[in-house]
Amino acid sequence: MARPKSIYRVRVGFIDTDAAQIVHHATYLRYFEAARIEFLREQGFDYAVWSKSDSLGLPVAETTVKYRLPARFDEVLEIQTWVGVAKRAYLVFQSELRRDNVLLTEGTAKCACTTLNGELRRVPVQLLKACLGDEYDVSLL
Amino acid sequence: MARPKSIYRVRVGFIDTDAAQIVHHATYLRYFEAARIEFLREQGFDYAVWSKSDSLGLPVAETTVKYRLPARFDEVLEIQTWVGVAKRAYLVFQSELRRDNVLLTEGTAKCACTTLNGELRRVPVQLLKACLGDEYDVSLL
Amino acid sequence: MARPKSIYRVRVGFIDTDAAQIVHHATYLRYFEAARIEFLREQGFDYAVWSKSDSLGLPVAETTVKYRLPARFDEVLEIQTWVGVAKRAYLVFQSELRRDNVLLTEGTAKCACTTLNGELRRVPVQLLKACLGDEYDVSLL
Amino acid sequence: MARPKSIYRVRVGFIDTDAAQIVHHATYLRYFEAARIEFLREQGFDYAVWSKSDSLGLPVAETTVKYRLPARFDEVLEIQTWVGVAKRAYLVFQSELRRDNVLLTEGTAKCACTTLNGELRRVPVQLLKACLGDEYDVSLL
Repeated sequence: MARPKSIYRVRVGFIDTDAAQIVHHATYLRYFEAARIEFLREQGFDYAVWSKSDSLGLPVAETTVKYRLPARFDEVLEIQTWVGVAKRAYLVFQSELRRDNVLLTEGTAKCACTTLNGELRRVPVQLLKACLGDEYDVSLL
Repeated sequence: MARPKSIYRVRVGFIDTDAAQIVHHATYLRYFEAARIEFLREQGFDYAVWSKSDSLGLPVAETTVKYRLPARFDEVLEIQTWVGVAKRAYLVFQSELRRDNVLLTEGTAKCACTTLNGELRRVPVQLLKACLGDEYDVSLL
Repeated sequence: MARPKSIYRVRVGFIDTDAAQIVHHATYLRYFEAARIEFLREQGFDYAVWSKSDSLGLPVAETTVKYRLPARFDEVLEIQTWVGVAKRAYLVFQSELRRDNVLLTEGTAKCACTTLNGELRRVPVQLLKACLGDEYDVSLL
Repeated sequence: MARPKSIYRVRVGFIDTDAAQIVHHATYLRYFEAARIEFLREQGFDYAVWSKSDSLGLPVAETTVKYRLPARFDEVLEIQTWVGVAKRAYLVFQSELRRDNVLLTEGTAKCACTTLNGELRRVPVQLLKACLGDEYDVSLL
């Protein structure tokens, strides 16, 4: 029973590139962020609606990115997203970005659950379930 | 009695460029925005403080940019900012961007004064005075 | 025989917004740029392939944007793109951005055809045909 | 004999923020990149000139960022930059970002030295010396 994964496709825009004629390293954080939102939507969790109704958010507390191979303008990239670690205090999203099945870039984003003033809150059970799917087991958290 | 003008210097970052190895056309809107805030500060108007205390803002309602010559990574650019038109309903900021006194790019930003919900408000007199300096004349507005 | 138009859909990312909790005005230039590339692709013109093989590009020489109503995080926006003016020296792309059929933002981008060193070239006939479709008439250019 | 460190100041722009009314997590990569270039300049190493004359670059191969406290619009931030690890194959830049001496964000960027086609090259001795200052010792590399 694998954890839920999603695939998000993005076409590299011209603005995404830099004078080295490759995708700028900061651009990947935009790609990964969009992919996380879509991952959650595919699991039935609408981040924007939740955030507004509950006045909570999932700000990035820590991120890592490994750039293995460059991507270039107009290429179609595929980002696989899943949750590597799910705790009551935070989630760690994993991202792998590929072009034609070749891994170019991978990253992690540790997201805490906070109020809009930045106070920590427990990650909602609904969200943990969305991220873990069948693997959700309250005893593990 | 010329209108107040300010000069804002910015060094082109690598992220500001694109695969054509020049500054991307959208980057200039970031430069001009920063230059407007500094222009206001130089006239004694702290945009961030005002915006927070009065719950108002100056969103861009219309912008135009002419790109005459490209700018490149690591160049130091100078942006001259002034208010071309000041009315009770809106301000039009003018921007001219130069490198070594050569005009590269020029732009305008028509800014309305609104609440945080987007409702129109009159431009505060304090702000009109800051923008027009000695030329401020209530009868002209 | 209308001119070719395309519709490009984009979901507003979190990074696309600013502290006023709306899409930042510079973000629209990214949306419009992506929409232009897709417009050209739909007309059978692959911008990236052409640019690389012919060492030419279509840099923006002038842009205007009118912001009528704000867009917000996670909304799905539709951008209609077409060419308003097509000359041997330049193209003017028109953009209209809507949410649920309500016009939020509209813009123009006047693009010249240049070498990678910025020297002006005639807009290729193949590109003019792609932009004008049935309306292409060499005598009008 | 401490390693060279530099301090780079940046004022938070409005575009740097997001709908959570704080600086977006990707924006810090822009700040850190600009701070690295200035760090090198202060050590007498002009990255842009070197990159152009030698057709080399220092692309980011790996980055990590820890976000401790948020930064907000118009704040002045100070970024301390130094090289934590300097090898013939790569440099690791360290960044600490503070507001009023409070640490908000810290990051690392592992940069390899490559040709414009992405082929690995040895980090130039001139660059190692610039990064390590008095601590440079060829036997350690």
